[in-house]
Amino acid sequence: MSSNLDTTQWPSVNTLTAPLVQYLIDNAKSLRLGIEKHATGATIIDAGIKVPGGLEAGRLVAEICMGGLGRVSLTANPTFGHWPWQLNVHSCNPILSCLGSQYAGWSLAHEKFFSLGSGPGRAMAGREELYKELGYQDKADSACLVLESDKVPPTEVIEKVARDTGLSADKLTFILTPTRSLAGTVQIVGRVLEVAMHKIHALHFPLEHVVDGMASAPVPPPAPDFLNGMGRTNDAILFGGHAHVFVLGSDDAAAELAKNLPSSASRDYGRPFAEVFKAVEYDFYKVDPMLFSPAAVTVTAVESGKSFTGGKLNAELLDKSFGYPA
Amino acid sequence: MSSNLDTTQWPSVNTLTAPLVQYLIDNAKSLRLGIEKHATGATIIDAGIKVPGGLEAGRLVAEICMGGLGRVSLTANPTFGHWPWQLNVHSCNPILSCLGSQYAGWSLAHEKFFSLGSGPGRAMAGREELYKELGYQDKADSACLVLESDKVPPTEVIEKVARDTGLSADKLTFILTPTRSLAGTVQIVGRVLEVAMHKIHALHFPLEHVVDGMASAPVPPPAPDFLNGMGRTNDAILFGGHAHVFVLGSDDAAAELAKNLPSSASRDYGRPFAEVFKAVEYDFYKVDPMLFSPAAVTVTAVESGKSFTGGKLNAELLDKSFGYPA
Amino acid sequence: MSSNLDTTQWPSVNTLTAPLVQYLIDNAKSLRLGIEKHATGATIIDAGIKVPGGLEAGRLVAEICMGGLGRVSLTANPTFGHWPWQLNVHSCNPILSCLGSQYAGWSLAHEKFFSLGSGPGRAMAGREELYKELGYQDKADSACLVLESDKVPPTEVIEKVARDTGLSADKLTFILTPTRSLAGTVQIVGRVLEVAMHKIHALHFPLEHVVDGMASAPVPPPAPDFLNGMGRTNDAILFGGHAHVFVLGSDDAAAELAKNLPSSASRDYGRPFAEVFKAVEYDFYKVDPMLFSPAAVTVTAVESGKSFTGGKLNAELLDKSFGYPA
Repeated sequence: MSSNLDTTQWPSVNTLTAPLVQYLIDNAKSLRLGIEKHATGATIIDAGIKVPGGLEAGRLVAEICMGGLGRVSLTANPTFGHWPWQLNVHSCNPILSCLGSQYAGWSLAHEKFFSLGSGPGRAMAGREELYKELGYQDKADSACLVLESDKVPPTEVIEKVARDTGLSADKLTFILTPTRSLAGTVQIVGRVLEVAMHKIHALHFPLEHVVDGMASAPVPPPAPDFLNGMGRTNDAILFGGHAHVFVLGSDDAAAELAKNLPSSASRDYGRPFAEVFKAVEYDFYKVDPMLFSPAAVTVTAVESGKSFTGGKLNAELLDKSFGYPA
Repeated sequence: MSSNLDTTQWPSVNTLTAPLVQYLIDNAKSLRLGIEKHATGATIIDAGIKVPGGLEAGRLVAEICMGGLGRVSLTANPTFGHWPWQLNVHSCNPILSCLGSQYAGWSLAHEKFFSLGSGPGRAMAGREELYKELGYQDKADSACLVLESDKVPPTEVIEKVARDTGLSADKLTFILTPTRSLAGTVQIVGRVLEVAMHKIHALHFPLEHVVDGMASAPVPPPAPDFLNGMGRTNDAILFGGHAHVFVLGSDDAAAELAKNLPSSASRDYGRPFAEVFKAVEYDFYKVDPMLFSPAAVTVTAVESGKSFTGGKLNAELLDKSFGYPA
Repeated sequence: MSSNLDTTQWPSVNTLTAPLVQYLIDNAKSLRLGIEKHATGATIIDAGIKVPGGLEAGRLVAEICMGGLGRVSLTANPTFGHWPWQLNVHSCNPILSCLGSQYAGWSLAHEKFFSLGSGPGRAMAGREELYKELGYQDKADSACLVLESDKVPPTEVIEKVARDTGLSADKLTFILTPTRSLAGTVQIVGRVLEVAMHKIHALHFPLEHVVDGMASAPVPPPAPDFLNGMGRTNDAILFGGHAHVFVLGSDDAAAELAKNLPSSASRDYGRPFAEVFKAVEYDFYKVDPMLFSPAAVTVTAVESGKSFTGGKLNAELLDKSFGYPA
């Protein structure tokens, strides 16, 4: 089923992203990144495996994930006493930027290697059902993928990406951000607006009715293991994320969206994500997909000018997830 | 009457703005803008009539309105529970940027078309009394005006602007942001510092005593009609605006300014602007001009180092104006 | 004693800063800066002696002080009612940026002239013990120093800087920001993260264990005299600064750091800095060096993922220092 989005004017996310990727390469020393040429010719940017990377590297990777259409800033405010820093995310085209680029939706596997590819390269390959629905196919001279991984992808994966994007491997860049690295932590929480867009889609709200949006979430402390790392970055959004979405359509549809969009509308809401995940024996498909969403939302129906709210920020569960007090 | 401002070192706001206008044109697809060549040769940038535009487009238009001297950012914070997003505005030269460029002071009319021109182009034309007082006349190779309008200006208006700026029409750019569009909403609220500067001027506080300033205001939901659209963008400032102004001169003058500057010092303060406007039968000249100002102010007298505050943020009236609860 | 920092990959802070310095020069009119060629050939940038300068100039000077590795933004939030504006500071390499560049550690004196040099030029000269410990020596084609001074440095000082950096004087830029100027106020408070790094160092916490950090502090009103000017900019950090630091090493070490890092851990904490300084008869060496630190800290031990907090924001003492109510 294809959406009614008019994508004829959508820009090329890979073209827009190319200078941002070049900025990472040119400033690798400042950003504490590792740059390597893979045997295939692909460029590998290490943002936290053998190098420290950091918060600012993560912020830039988040903007790359958003296909050059998003702005991600770090500011402090008093919402959460012990976690004063937050990410502010907005985009000039949330559907293209968040779903068409940032969503980690491209399954890349070979033998023991598995990662969900994120970023503009997905839109060149178009291997996901989502692209049929969006009706968007990017064409560009280079492509970039972000992998939440602590391993360099094997040659087979790089060759597959080259094949699927129609590019030679030397035109590909892979940015690797381990879940527990600072850059990884920031770029994952930088998905707070994307998570809202993804759930809007999962709720079958018409994508062409989403006009704009902004979302914020606190920066979590990295965790000691993958499970808690994944848990905390999710919980930063589930308990600390706040989104304002602007939509076309009826007030009833907007009110319904405000009611169903927040994480608290899920049956699995109420404890840190790591606990939820453990309870289903680490089977992702048993977690309620409706859980993944910002904690609090304001939905404005732009035609009537009415606004509806849902959910609320939850400092207590945030502290619990973030391991405070220690 | 001319001010005692030393404008000999003031830069050219149109020259500073030219690359920002070019950025809009180069990134029109990303920003969802429409770019048209008018029959006269002028460039028309549609930021919300036939195209969606958006929040980021509005943010950039606000910086253009400020003549390339202002910085406008979007961040979230907990000041107003349902309206977490705010605009942060500061400028390296508030008098030139806000009064000399951003203020919507140039009346442009032809038959049924009417709009108040805003932005750096005003300073090339110098048709307003204000420019005599400022003692500033810009000279540049191109000029840009922002119109809060949902119609392309007629040829007669474009030709008048060409005449008054001394440029051929192909050197002119008109950016159109309807009041109810997202870009319009953002660029109007982006006037929060300008509104403070304008009232400072209306209070006959010497402009040459204004050293610097910063101001913030929440992003309102667009409204269903022009009246409420105008109401909400005004109220974002009147009930949610917060300014910090740094001034030369006596403590008494600073204290007096802090007392009189906030919107609450006006006899018309106390209800949403749309109601105020309706009560005077939509006659702008019957609204107390002292109403237009941020809700809360801090005024620092830089010579003595003393600070004075006035007014306060009003979340209740903000909710009422913004139509919450729906 | 040298640290165990691996500085082999550290970039050149003077090379990174050169384009930012050029930006100040190119935009001197907009930023209200004075640019002069000194008889020695050195470039002197006046950011508040004979010219107004301003908040934005101070923000840019703060980024220059951080060696081109820091981001400093101005946003408003409700933490402190009367002082809504704050600086948000983070860096892609806090040790290099804050200690290797921003710290005001180079004593420059000649006859009556005295100033503590700050900024990347220090790392070319390497005259401070700190550089032996860091193991960092910058090499670049130009150098920049920031002086918190209201006087142009005498020829002898400029020649000394030329000698010590190994550059001819025409490759040097000196940026002058008087303590009481707006640019000075902002660039000093922009040291909130540096102050945290400096105290971390003073506490003998291993620098190579500091992975990353972010810090914020409110913008104070300039003061009527040097003593109170110095007092308020310090107090903005001591009573209003909030830092989040990410460290390697044991939980015990992180917990200990969180306990000792905040200003409140000092015996001199409890009254405005100007009073403290007066009480020791203006003898800097009698002030507890442990006083200089942000008010509140979160320390995250990245290996265990545990976070520890210490100190707290103190709005009452902030108001007292900032002279409120007047």
